[in-house]
Amino acid sequence: MAISEFDLIQQYFTSEELINSVNRLGVGDDCALMSIPDGYELAVTVDTMVEGVHFFTGADPEQLARKLLAVNLSDLAAMGASPVSVTLALTIPEVNESWLESFSTGFLDLVKLYSLDLIGGDTTKGPLTLSVQAMGIVPKGRALRRSTAKAGDLVFVTGQGLGDSGLGLKIEQGYQGECSGTVLQKFHTPEPRVSEGLKIREYASSCIDLSDGIASDLSHILKQSGVGAVLEWDKIPLSKAVADYIDLTDDWLLPLSAGEDYELCFTVAPDKVSSINIECTQIGVIESCAGLRLQRLGVTKELGVKGFEHFS
Amino acid sequence: MAISEFDLIQQYFTSEELINSVNRLGVGDDCALMSIPDGYELAVTVDTMVEGVHFFTGADPEQLARKLLAVNLSDLAAMGASPVSVTLALTIPEVNESWLESFSTGFLDLVKLYSLDLIGGDTTKGPLTLSVQAMGIVPKGRALRRSTAKAGDLVFVTGQGLGDSGLGLKIEQGYQGECSGTVLQKFHTPEPRVSEGLKIREYASSCIDLSDGIASDLSHILKQSGVGAVLEWDKIPLSKAVADYIDLTDDWLLPLSAGEDYELCFTVAPDKVSSINIECTQIGVIESCAGLRLQRLGVTKELGVKGFEHFS
Repeated sequence: MAISEFDLIQQYFTSEELINSVNRLGVGDDCALMSIPDGYELAVTVDTMVEGVHFFTGADPEQLARKLLAVNLSDLAAMGASPVSVTLALTIPEVNESWLESFSTGFLDLVKLYSLDLIGGDTTKGPLTLSVQAMGIVPKGRALRRSTAKAGDLVFVTGQGLGDSGLGLKIEQGYQGECSGTVLQKFHTPEPRVSEGLKIREYASSCIDLSDGIASDLSHILKQSGVGAVLEWDKIPLSKAVADYIDLTDDWLLPLSAGEDYELCFTVAPDKVSSINIECTQIGVIESCAGLRLQRLGVTKELGVKGFEHFS
Repeated sequence: MAISEFDLIQQYFTSEELINSVNRLGVGDDCALMSIPDGYELAVTVDTMVEGVHFFTGADPEQLARKLLAVNLSDLAAMGASPVSVTLALTIPEVNESWLESFSTGFLDLVKLYSLDLIGGDTTKGPLTLSVQAMGIVPKGRALRRSTAKAGDLVFVTGQGLGDSGLGLKIEQGYQGECSGTVLQKFHTPEPRVSEGLKIREYASSCIDLSDGIASDLSHILKQSGVGAVLEWDKIPLSKAVADYIDLTDDWLLPLSAGEDYELCFTVAPDKVSSINIECTQIGVIESCAGLRLQRLGVTKELGVKGFEHFS
């Protein structure tokens, strides 16, 4: 399906050689070839970003590339997988050299940072649509799943605060409150918790990455594990920027329902809590009774998947 | 990056259970998990189709799904890989239930026909853009490559005739000559040569699938193998429809330069020709002198990558 004019774009994404021994053959043949080491499984994820839907028209292509890759690496992190390869399906309206240069700079920087190989791709003409498939390896049977949380497990999140990315979006959309650059950075270039995922693989009982907000994402764990949970509002980590925003607006649902934090939410059995070796915060506990509840101002109520059904 | 409204679309693509033991975990977690058997490598390919570029606006969604998958399976066939898994990145402008039903019918039919598992995907809102990543397994070191043709090898193509798909496109664009339904079928729903790829893996020295026309595609083999080739016009297989078209128009470059036939073009060393166990036609020979030449009406001339530079 190649459009010959677009073949020249290969030049922007061709890396010199493959750095992971897992990858036996990269760009240039009908397929790439991967050789998965004995005792390992391959984790595979795909995410697409569309102009005007997932990012603003005219968005900085370098930031865009970083976010696109980070979003995919975050899924690998949530499985406890070591990233090894990516493929890129790039649909662009025209061959704009400065756009491509900037996009490929961001993309290849992150590829290098995470010791990935870009092993394949397809460049087509059309409305700006970016799709990445990321692949990682994980020891057999050791991947972190959503379906394995148990009543009594404690619930943790990584990072300094939830809702930073959501506040970043509000600022981009015109919100005028005080803010720190960290919040905008979190929105534009989230940092996937890859090393954290590898560490918690040793003791976590379940894990998911926070793409849609913890109310929605944790609910996936609860549903798939057949359990419930209660979160304590006072334990939810908040950056100063988000705390200030809540003081000003009373929109305290933001850190629970806003998306794109790309932190990990995971559960740990009580007898394994002493193993925890990453920066994280305990925010709640898994219970046998289905549903997601929030304890706030001395009252416990159903939070609901979207974080507002029963509170608003 | 999920848009919650679009989550409901999962229903159209969720298969009951995984049929390949290679696939350990399908749709529903942060990643899918694959376990590649010892002694095998994973072949990975990605192809994107965009409305208005690769297919007409309003194209039949069932045919579209079949073609999208076939195009990817054709790449696996060209490596001699057995298809096992696909992921689908589906960008659609709106939730149109009848479109989705028709698209998923075509997609899942082919998934079933080739004993694949749909192990992951992402559904987003935006201009109609369809991206599939297909994965297959191949015994280690046995994948068919583009870079391993040798002078003296014979050049073969599968199928009944080249240019059928190109003629199908001309008919869709208004060409009025006589035609057979086969030609249109070839354009809309090409059949990937998966079983042929598995068989020729035992004796072929190189292989590529014909997506851009043999002049262009064979040139990839020649360049990557550091060799040249001469094709004999009289040996090029032509359907009656294409032969009639050439008689009428004298456009004899069509079967050499039109894309989307999705046949396999492969080379075989002379001492292995007796092993050939598929329907195919010998159309030329690999030479040590670089470049692609065509013998026609007693004259041999450079054909060029696009099939016309030196002939037109």
